[in-house]
Amino acid sequence: MDVNKAFEIVQPFLKPERFEHTKRVVETAVKLSQKYGGDQNKVELAAAFHDIAKNRPADLLKRWILREPLLPRDLLEFHHELWHGPVGALMVRQDYGIEDPDILNAIRYHTTGRPAMTKLEKIVFIADYIEPGRKFPGIEEAREITEKDLDLGCHVALKNTIQFLMKQRQPIYPATFYAYNDLTQKLKR
Amino acid sequence: MDVNKAFEIVQPFLKPERFEHTKRVVETAVKLSQKYGGDQNKVELAAAFHDIAKNRPADLLKRWILREPLLPRDLLEFHHELWHGPVGALMVRQDYGIEDPDILNAIRYHTTGRPAMTKLEKIVFIADYIEPGRKFPGIEEAREITEKDLDLGCHVALKNTIQFLMKQRQPIYPATFYAYNDLTQKLKR
Repeated sequence: MDVNKAFEIVQPFLKPERFEHTKRVVETAVKLSQKYGGDQNKVELAAAFHDIAKNRPADLLKRWILREPLLPRDLLEFHHELWHGPVGALMVRQDYGIEDPDILNAIRYHTTGRPAMTKLEKIVFIADYIEPGRKFPGIEEAREITEKDLDLGCHVALKNTIQFLMKQRQPIYPATFYAYNDLTQKLKR
Repeated sequence: MDVNKAFEIVQPFLKPERFEHTKRVVETAVKLSQKYGGDQNKVELAAAFHDIAKNRPADLLKRWILREPLLPRDLLEFHHELWHGPVGALMVRQDYGIEDPDILNAIRYHTTGRPAMTKLEKIVFIADYIEPGRKFPGIEEAREITEKDLDLGCHVALKNTIQFLMKQRQPIYPATFYAYNDLTQKLKR
């Protein structure tokens, strides 16, 4: 599949501003893959599809999680904001025949991260965080660090995400925390 | 055992300023147990013994961890600052005959916390954090909040600890993170 076909598929599912965000994530991810390596078509598809489930109703996402034996039930104990990645990966596999596990995992883990992320997973995770439309404290630092080192960029994004959630008195999804620990240990070595 | 006997036992193992800290933790913990309930003798013993292993050499602590099948090996992948609680609990059980699991767990988890802490565990954890000799940013807030609500005080301490470790680019011990999530969920209900 080429990226234009992927855009055609996702556009009807996304609010206009979410579709604009998606296009910026694709551009950002492609630039990062030119710097850090990776199959450009995979990067484009993962980025184009990453938010396919973002604007679907929470109860629809919940039904997908409940009927998919391979998804962890504990997702339902956390904020529904975390559901669209895992469900989006299921949707593109089932409805659009995307079978590549690296693309599916980049979609699945783009919000939470996870330990031992592949390069493609990191690129989509951080492209979503730093795309040019994002505006929040610390974003410039995250962009600069990502230009220098992909792991360090993801580490800063994970750290900021954990800090943000703690300020909001939200629980932190375990994969996010283990992703932080994993990159912390990796960056020490 | 009464608290004076416990002080007699720990004093030779502690640097003078660490012994002074220990006495302040006992005083703070007793005050908290007068407010929040709990067996005063247990509170005194747990607080008096909490740092018994603190000033022992790291390689001695490591040997205790390696020979105790019930301690998780993953402790050794984290900062040695985390080892003295679990090893201290083993020491007081083996060498001084303290068998009460609630006292032993309060010693064991006083640095990291853990999910579903008992009242005694929370009292020793937070007394260690807020005793009057502690001076760091946010300490006054932590003291005030602990006066109002024991869970909320522990929650603030866990949050500050995670933030501090992330600023130092240190990994976070999983029990600390799960303790944060556990209290976050409990405080929501």
